[in-house]
Amino acid sequence: MTHYWWSERVGPGFSHSYEVELLYEERTPFQHMFIFNTPFWGRALVLDGVIQLTEGDEYVYHEMMVHVPILGRDQQVRSVLIIGGADGGALREVLTHESVERVVQVELDKAVLKACRKYMPEICRGWDDPRVQLIIGDGAGYMKEAARRGEQFDVILLDSTDPIGPAISLFERPFHEDIAACLSDHGVVVRQSGLPRTMPKVMPFVMKRFEDVLPLVQVYRAPVSVYGDEMAFVAATKDGVALNNPRGDHIGKFYNPGCHRAAFELPTWWNKLIESYEDDGQIPLETINIL
Amino acid sequence: MTHYWWSERVGPGFSHSYEVELLYEERTPFQHMFIFNTPFWGRALVLDGVIQLTEGDEYVYHEMMVHVPILGRDQQVRSVLIIGGADGGALREVLTHESVERVVQVELDKAVLKACRKYMPEICRGWDDPRVQLIIGDGAGYMKEAARRGEQFDVILLDSTDPIGPAISLFERPFHEDIAACLSDHGVVVRQSGLPRTMPKVMPFVMKRFEDVLPLVQVYRAPVSVYGDEMAFVAATKDGVALNNPRGDHIGKFYNPGCHRAAFELPTWWNKLIESYEDDGQIPLETINIL
Repeated sequence: MTHYWWSERVGPGFSHSYEVELLYEERTPFQHMFIFNTPFWGRALVLDGVIQLTEGDEYVYHEMMVHVPILGRDQQVRSVLIIGGADGGALREVLTHESVERVVQVELDKAVLKACRKYMPEICRGWDDPRVQLIIGDGAGYMKEAARRGEQFDVILLDSTDPIGPAISLFERPFHEDIAACLSDHGVVVRQSGLPRTMPKVMPFVMKRFEDVLPLVQVYRAPVSVYGDEMAFVAATKDGVALNNPRGDHIGKFYNPGCHRAAFELPTWWNKLIESYEDDGQIPLETINIL
Repeated sequence: MTHYWWSERVGPGFSHSYEVELLYEERTPFQHMFIFNTPFWGRALVLDGVIQLTEGDEYVYHEMMVHVPILGRDQQVRSVLIIGGADGGALREVLTHESVERVVQVELDKAVLKACRKYMPEICRGWDDPRVQLIIGDGAGYMKEAARRGEQFDVILLDSTDPIGPAISLFERPFHEDIAACLSDHGVVVRQSGLPRTMPKVMPFVMKRFEDVLPLVQVYRAPVSVYGDEMAFVAATKDGVALNNPRGDHIGKFYNPGCHRAAFELPTWWNKLIESYEDDGQIPLETINIL
């Protein structure tokens, strides 16, 4: 086994460094993938130099991405679409909800799916469920076709990488129009929208693109440990009903109804980022200095 | 200027690495101090290998440490005691409250005070305020004498390092008895209680020591970015009244009344750490593997 220290650049002159054992490496047609084992976080998936998830804290991200839209609606969720999410963590959480009858997942990179299934079987275990239809392909292309066919989903989860590399088409305007068209009457869409600390323009940009096409847009936050700061999720609803008030008393490893409500209370500096954002329509690609 | 990369060990096989310019280094009688300049976080204070604060995100820690106890009480706060806090950030936030008539600050290490005053003047600027009495000395010794004299404070802030090195006496039982004795009738004490992710026993240990001497103990959380995960504050009140509901509409860079309330909603895994903690009275000194 190859055994060394690996660093992720988090910001200018700032990195997270991990003692790693390389379990798998592949240059797929779309991205450069590592799967590492680490002493503190367990196994980790890295795409194009960015840690996507670790076994040790992935539940924070996946529970908050999934349970907030599903339990924040008054209506039972029957159908879910996941764009991205090759690791299977979002799917695992979706399948805990018994009302769910149908899940379509569209993942671009088959190689990542295969590697996660092999190396992270505890996370990546939903694919055999009869409710699940897995499609290998481009998320934007799928959305366009789904909108043309009149497909409807109660919840759409955008579990993609940041707006660099293969996910870029998922940040363009037509994709958002197709999302809105494919939401059912009380439908909800959620997108992971990065870390405001290191990518301050992504959250407000995503809000603007949803505001273009849907009547209510909300932000909530989740402390995903390996990302090193709180991350933003942007959610939007087709009926304009807010997601703050959870149904039921679902308890996860991170999630509970109190944390669901609390997640919508934003720090003042996030509110200022949102208020001061000037939308030029350009997809924000860069990190900036925070000072 | 010395210019290099410096790493903080956060957990087993996991570090945060910073490109740094060394502004100052001193081996004080108590600890090994660095002050660095960094491109992303601005200036940073490091004691015994642990980042204490940076200019870029210190407001999260200091606002949440100070405003929650001051605004969480129904009564106006007139007197405040700060143990530790050489950087001056907690003092700065305390002095924003006009009701405060008297602040006593007890700091062990004069060298850290002097260095912060020189290198972080924007943070460390409260010492000349006529309401402030600064004492250089041991916090536990001061508390013992203050209890003997019958001193009373409305808010006591324990802004010390983690339970290693010079702060160890601040985690022993007699210190907590003296704290309780020196709280006024509606008094509140708050202690920074580390990161549950990397020091899972510190938060429940601190809770137990406060439960020994005070009727109500609460935990709240704050996402201090350079620490790499949410940290815990443990608070206790002499009158048993909870701190969740803020008075007024104070707005900081991080703090606002919504974030104040939200901070008391704990993730399930924190609740489990608290429920499963077995108190053997020993001060927890180690980080553990999270998996």
